[in-house]
Amino acid sequence: MRMTDVIERKRDGKALTGEEIKALVKGYTEDSIPDYQMSAFLMAVYYEGMSDEEVAALTDAMATSGETLDYASLGNKTVDKHSTGGVGDKTTFVVAPLAASCGIIVPKMSGRGLGHTGGTIDKLEAIPGFKTDATKEEFNTLLKTYGMAVVGQTQDLAPADKKIYALRDVTATVESLPLIASSVMSKKIAAGAKGIVLDVKVGSGAFMKSADEARKLASTMVSIGEALGRKTIALLTNMDQPLGYTIGNLLEVEEAIDTLKGEGPEDVTELSVQLVARMLMCTDESITFDKAYETVKAKLLSGEALEKFISYSESRGADRALFSSFSSLYEGVETIDLYPEQEGYIHRFDTQGIGRAAMWLGAGRADKTSQIDPAVGLKLLKKSGDFVSTDTPWVRLYVRKGTSCEDTKRLLQECIELGAAAPDTLPLIIDTVTA
Amino acid sequence: MRMTDVIERKRDGKALTGEEIKALVKGYTEDSIPDYQMSAFLMAVYYEGMSDEEVAALTDAMATSGETLDYASLGNKTVDKHSTGGVGDKTTFVVAPLAASCGIIVPKMSGRGLGHTGGTIDKLEAIPGFKTDATKEEFNTLLKTYGMAVVGQTQDLAPADKKIYALRDVTATVESLPLIASSVMSKKIAAGAKGIVLDVKVGSGAFMKSADEARKLASTMVSIGEALGRKTIALLTNMDQPLGYTIGNLLEVEEAIDTLKGEGPEDVTELSVQLVARMLMCTDESITFDKAYETVKAKLLSGEALEKFISYSESRGADRALFSSFSSLYEGVETIDLYPEQEGYIHRFDTQGIGRAAMWLGAGRADKTSQIDPAVGLKLLKKSGDFVSTDTPWVRLYVRKGTSCEDTKRLLQECIELGAAAPDTLPLIIDTVTA
Repeated sequence: MRMTDVIERKRDGKALTGEEIKALVKGYTEDSIPDYQMSAFLMAVYYEGMSDEEVAALTDAMATSGETLDYASLGNKTVDKHSTGGVGDKTTFVVAPLAASCGIIVPKMSGRGLGHTGGTIDKLEAIPGFKTDATKEEFNTLLKTYGMAVVGQTQDLAPADKKIYALRDVTATVESLPLIASSVMSKKIAAGAKGIVLDVKVGSGAFMKSADEARKLASTMVSIGEALGRKTIALLTNMDQPLGYTIGNLLEVEEAIDTLKGEGPEDVTELSVQLVARMLMCTDESITFDKAYETVKAKLLSGEALEKFISYSESRGADRALFSSFSSLYEGVETIDLYPEQEGYIHRFDTQGIGRAAMWLGAGRADKTSQIDPAVGLKLLKKSGDFVSTDTPWVRLYVRKGTSCEDTKRLLQECIELGAAAPDTLPLIIDTVTA
Repeated sequence: MRMTDVIERKRDGKALTGEEIKALVKGYTEDSIPDYQMSAFLMAVYYEGMSDEEVAALTDAMATSGETLDYASLGNKTVDKHSTGGVGDKTTFVVAPLAASCGIIVPKMSGRGLGHTGGTIDKLEAIPGFKTDATKEEFNTLLKTYGMAVVGQTQDLAPADKKIYALRDVTATVESLPLIASSVMSKKIAAGAKGIVLDVKVGSGAFMKSADEARKLASTMVSIGEALGRKTIALLTNMDQPLGYTIGNLLEVEEAIDTLKGEGPEDVTELSVQLVARMLMCTDESITFDKAYETVKAKLLSGEALEKFISYSESRGADRALFSSFSSLYEGVETIDLYPEQEGYIHRFDTQGIGRAAMWLGAGRADKTSQIDPAVGLKLLKKSGDFVSTDTPWVRLYVRKGTSCEDTKRLLQECIELGAAAPDTLPLIIDTVTA
């Protein structure tokens, strides 16, 4: 295989064989194909796209470029959940214990966050004493004991994806649907669960701004998953406003726990139940959506999932007593209420801007070296469609005492757009994509 | 300037500024922009093209990336001639002395050839004793004395082009019109002549297979030349069959000398006169084409150009006596005549195939280390439109005695296509492109 010929064929819109794609990924991972040929190839893919067969072959080659996990000893009910990333998304803390209490095994490896707020791991570490790393043995023991494990990704899963992603990042080839889809799915495939439920976010706070784009991405990822032997279901969900009311690490964990108590925001509750219902459908082909939904909802109301999360957290080093009140963890933090400058209905959030505001307060990392402050962040007091008036606060900031946050206040005021009449809003669950 | 942003803007079909293009070329030449970003950029250019302003800026940046030549002391009548490359093209040996005898100054720096037959320099070196290298002082003295100089390119002209071309060659980004045009023109601009006449070949023996493609390339190159202050004229000329009858280094020089004697093939004669007429028009805006053509034709018939070439060659080390007969240089070479396998009219040549046949005989280089045999090659005895019969030879091979050349014979027979009736053929001069 001459790499120049492979680039040329892709450039000319011809499909590559599975063998060629395998050799390409192998060669690049082993440094026998140089960066400059790979980047020209990736740019050609940006323009020409990839067939379903090509993108499945690419994903497979990246997934098998390093270690791959396997839960054969735990049976067939392993299901992973993946979100393409949004603002205020704390569903993992609800989904994992809720799915586990429905008999699903949830092996979840998560990353730390760069930008907006912290990642799943950063949020867990907002709970004092919480251990997020685990050896392979500990991971398997957690799965066996609790049916769930949420740990930092320590294994070197899909190293080819890591190397290719780093190159895409500096060659303007990030925004390519087959490359995005294969990057996400290669890590999921390597992580070994038999079922995969994808939460593809759409809107002002998401990478995908339109439902059409998101549907294409979802359908490519579902097609990859199925081609590689995993039952895969994707939901398109609304990210035109933050999920729930809170953005900030500890605030989000607390809101997730409220949800497990049956007292959470409607959207967090509904999305979590919807996601777990799909996870259940991955493990049981015969169950209808209505039946799955009903089962999951009942589990949530039973309190079993809350107890599962608390005992899991205890085993990881957290203090059980904390779960009745987190207030002691906000010491040194004061709240500041912001008021609307005029009255009206909330029409639009600049969701990414709201994420940025939380980061400016210290809830996220501006760069790899930044320290996260777990207790700062913000809480929306109103959401899309709500009427607001100048005498009622609409956002509450949680800031370290004495911090100046004028910039953040101005940014936030600009991130919420009002209208005279109640707006039309997209539903929370926009669409479901299956094979 | 962040290189990723520059790639992204080009990728998204936006035009870059002259400053950005300058910084890009400078950064790449100085190794501060890595290969992998440049190759992604080049692939984006392959898809998005470049505006006239962008391609002129790119050419200028490459032209000024190293030394640039200047003939201010020689006045305003410097004109360069460049061919995009064909099979059997020996016009430089006619054009340079013919233009010089019309009062034009022709500073010509040429390369060696890879593929088909040798380049201009290899062909000159087929004449025993001929020196093709020259110091800058020698080059200027030749121009002052003879009005012409044809030497090997020793100066490091347009090093950025060299570096970018090497990258394009291994990243499937050679076939891009703005990149081809800027590569050719950057070297011509750096070489310093005030006028540039381009011979853009079209047909089975050329890089450009269709007149439309060639016209676009020509018009881009003309637009670059004019934007950078050079009077530029391009001819589109037919390369559906070799130019003249001979392919092989010594054979081609001999045919060029026949042309200077007024005894050359019609096409070589006509193309040479046409090219020099355009060179004259570059130096004198008021002259009409008819007048220029007439002037040049008369110079050719006067024998002045022949004497110019002989005395130039003598000054470079060649033996004047040789120019009455080259026969002594064919010692050890035998001829083999090939006959058509059936009768008919010659409809089509696979011109590239014929070039390859000459290379197989030893007239060209298969790779950089190959040695050229100056005296081998082939002579077509018939050309397009001629009627051929099985009892009259149509190709004469010049081979080292005792060489087996069965492969070459078979290849040649496959390169000439017959038809029952006389074919339509394209004219020699297909079009003229000016600003």
